[in-house]
Amino acid sequence: MAPSLTLFFSLFTAFLSSSLQPLASSSPFNHPPRFPATAKLPWAQVRVNEAQAPEYRYETRYFSQQLDHFSFLELPTFQQRYLINTEYWVGPQRLGPIFFYCGNEGDIVWFAENTGFVWEIAPQFGAMVVFPEHRYYGESMPFGSREEAYKNATTLSYLTAEQALADFSVLVTDLKQNLSATDCPVVLFGGSYGGMLAAWMRLKYPHIAIGALAASAPILQFEDIVPQETFYDIVSNDFKRESSTCFNYIKESWNNIASIGQTLNGLVQLSNTFHFCRPLNKTADLWNWLEDAYGYLAMVDYPYPASFMMPLPGHPIKEVCKRIDGQLAGTSVLERIYDGVNVYYNYTGETKCFELDDDPHGLSGWNWQACTEMVMPMSCDPDSCMFPPYKFNYSDYEEGCISSYGVKPRPKWITTEFGGHKIDATLKKFGSNLIFSNGLLDPWSGGSVLQNISESVVALVTEEGAHHLDLRASTKYDPDWLVEQRATEIKLIKGWITEYHEKNKAMFDM
Amino acid sequence: MAPSLTLFFSLFTAFLSSSLQPLASSSPFNHPPRFPATAKLPWAQVRVNEAQAPEYRYETRYFSQQLDHFSFLELPTFQQRYLINTEYWVGPQRLGPIFFYCGNEGDIVWFAENTGFVWEIAPQFGAMVVFPEHRYYGESMPFGSREEAYKNATTLSYLTAEQALADFSVLVTDLKQNLSATDCPVVLFGGSYGGMLAAWMRLKYPHIAIGALAASAPILQFEDIVPQETFYDIVSNDFKRESSTCFNYIKESWNNIASIGQTLNGLVQLSNTFHFCRPLNKTADLWNWLEDAYGYLAMVDYPYPASFMMPLPGHPIKEVCKRIDGQLAGTSVLERIYDGVNVYYNYTGETKCFELDDDPHGLSGWNWQACTEMVMPMSCDPDSCMFPPYKFNYSDYEEGCISSYGVKPRPKWITTEFGGHKIDATLKKFGSNLIFSNGLLDPWSGGSVLQNISESVVALVTEEGAHHLDLRASTKYDPDWLVEQRATEIKLIKGWITEYHEKNKAMFDM
Repeated sequence: MAPSLTLFFSLFTAFLSSSLQPLASSSPFNHPPRFPATAKLPWAQVRVNEAQAPEYRYETRYFSQQLDHFSFLELPTFQQRYLINTEYWVGPQRLGPIFFYCGNEGDIVWFAENTGFVWEIAPQFGAMVVFPEHRYYGESMPFGSREEAYKNATTLSYLTAEQALADFSVLVTDLKQNLSATDCPVVLFGGSYGGMLAAWMRLKYPHIAIGALAASAPILQFEDIVPQETFYDIVSNDFKRESSTCFNYIKESWNNIASIGQTLNGLVQLSNTFHFCRPLNKTADLWNWLEDAYGYLAMVDYPYPASFMMPLPGHPIKEVCKRIDGQLAGTSVLERIYDGVNVYYNYTGETKCFELDDDPHGLSGWNWQACTEMVMPMSCDPDSCMFPPYKFNYSDYEEGCISSYGVKPRPKWITTEFGGHKIDATLKKFGSNLIFSNGLLDPWSGGSVLQNISESVVALVTEEGAHHLDLRASTKYDPDWLVEQRATEIKLIKGWITEYHEKNKAMFDM
Repeated sequence: MAPSLTLFFSLFTAFLSSSLQPLASSSPFNHPPRFPATAKLPWAQVRVNEAQAPEYRYETRYFSQQLDHFSFLELPTFQQRYLINTEYWVGPQRLGPIFFYCGNEGDIVWFAENTGFVWEIAPQFGAMVVFPEHRYYGESMPFGSREEAYKNATTLSYLTAEQALADFSVLVTDLKQNLSATDCPVVLFGGSYGGMLAAWMRLKYPHIAIGALAASAPILQFEDIVPQETFYDIVSNDFKRESSTCFNYIKESWNNIASIGQTLNGLVQLSNTFHFCRPLNKTADLWNWLEDAYGYLAMVDYPYPASFMMPLPGHPIKEVCKRIDGQLAGTSVLERIYDGVNVYYNYTGETKCFELDDDPHGLSGWNWQACTEMVMPMSCDPDSCMFPPYKFNYSDYEEGCISSYGVKPRPKWITTEFGGHKIDATLKKFGSNLIFSNGLLDPWSGGSVLQNISESVVALVTEEGAHHLDLRASTKYDPDWLVEQRATEIKLIKGWITEYHEKNKAMFDM
């Protein structure tokens, strides 16, 4: 349930538009990385409007964390928020499991509410549920406030995946000690970036967690491990499979926008066509706004209505393409596009005009992460990709990060720290009790593990699935394949726990 | 070949004497952690005098490292020194292995010269040999100089094991890329603290190294994993097994020293008895000096003459006890002790008087490490231990660190980061290709892994072995058990490489 990677997408599109000469445009597309343009609907509002909004019970607690686990610089500690529910837990005597969700780049309450799977299965496992928040997101702010934490590269410098994993490890170790539950098995869950954290934590801290369900976790989206075109090719195919005309309209639209943008009053015209509350400053903003919508749509192309990023109908891409294709003859490409993306930005129809740069879920820290460790090279191939062609250029990327944050990325660090090249060999030998679940409609699936690696490192791939749909609460609309996928996950997790209990029993019996 | 843990010992004795009320003394034993009192013989001098000093060929290179791998604070990089020899390497086409020694807390040249095993076996493996230096030791100084690096807690704050492991990982990854040798298998070696690093690196970076020989690596010497008395009990037993009278004389000596120290001119008298160049400032200094000698003697109780810490005869403890026991009747306890420890501090007989606080191998950074991550609780049991009785007290320890460095230790961090509790279960499931070699005379053996854990996590234990004797160059004096131990190590390492080559071949054949 992490939109995390939405952010990757967003960041990339920012770079895409900013650092590169688009097809037919000479506009100065130079803006810093920016955030998902999730328009003006704050999440709270979405929840109120949503009949099926779940109600999960938990206690909110705070844990004092080291800001830098790997140095002894005298730094202020910070309060990490975590949500905890022990009402189903069978306790330490019976070695009740601890379900531990690896919080990702946003408010943990939002993730908790969108990770119904963990809440739903906890009772049958007699499990405690813990949702720790990722540092620098939600309320878990170093230096006392978001403003201070995000002030500059110095204050942001401790926003890294390794520090977050250390937070999780210290927290769960302390929690278990305090509950006299050191022997209770910990099972990790995570989606998107959180799924990457879950997988990495299982690999780096095997003494702490017995297994991990890593949903839609693109741990291979680094360096040259997967083709750079993968992400945008999948987004594009998601549209093409609904309608090749739809795909072509979108592909055509970029140049149209660029051409109009260059004319006198072109930006005003575009702003009117797309109903922005304020005139656009540059065409790149519109590009990004559209790219965000298509990317997110591909991620949340769920088979039933859902409100993860935005309130959307089931099969939203089908809906978008219906609108793009289904206009009267003579309707301009941009009017078609406008009507199409309204499915994403304004499905409720309540929005009168759009604002750019909203960040209702507080996800913007991802831009920093993308400018430091999370360098995911992506390109757009002119033949297969419906976005403006783009060839990833590391120098431009680096330059963008330096100018935005004054920070230089370390593009090889993640694979050095966590591996990635020849992942099969590594996971076969060292990994176990890992589930990589992926839906092939999800553009992030291309950077994940899609094949079984061993008996206990398993890939669950669904053709019609999108971004970690399996982590969401069950609904009456769930297709059979989703019901089956979740049942398999439950069976595998049960296997890990049973195996753990048997080994522990064997140790007690000795 | 790491005296590393000599330091642990030294540090402990410092705390032991400083933070605790000794038996019959009211002296204010309050001094900060200090360093091995290796007297006035600089290592260089020892080498010149030593006929069998080996000559290993290597090139010295420097690699630019991040000071903090886990944050993006803008910090100066530093030059990490490493020694490299490629003359036996069969190259990337033939997947020639890379033997990578995990440098520990001292000058890497010294370790390289005392790790003959790696040099000797490299040719038969067609292996490259790399000896990277540990940050903050030798020439690998952040902030340009030792003086700057050790200036205060802020400059020292990046001296941690995790940073060192990241240095190694980044270095070897870069090295392999530059040599087009990304597929070449890396085998790790390390002794003492370096052995801990080798084992941890194998566990934390399995994608980087295919196996590790961790010699005398006390990875379990943390928290309550092994009994606190283990270390000093082993030292004491090493003396007792040679002679119980010797053991008793030593046990008796502490109170004698304390009593004399309290008298008028007592410190002068003690200084004369022990031939110090300058009068002692406090009896604790003498205690530490003696404790250091006994601890080191137990570590290097090798069966043949060697010059690791100091030039020593074979079976040096036997020699010490011969001198302590073999005096004329009526000789005082302290005169006996003086003659005994001369075996350690002055075997060549060239020293006219002794100085305190020399640190010829530049090991003093260990005190910082012991005051941050490497908190190894040790106690001395009045019955079994020949040292002044001592019960480890964490508050005192912490207080000592705060007053010495202004830093607060994190005593639970190492086991959180690397595991340690229930090591069998963890290593059985996640470890492979690991050798833990230990000699039971070595006091550090008590904190290491002494039993086979699986087919590929193997404990090689020798009854008459001391501190990572197996890593030293072979000599004509090697006892059969040592020859056999090294042969087993070679066989196991060959097995790892063969397995790796076969898997790689299988991949190429696919």
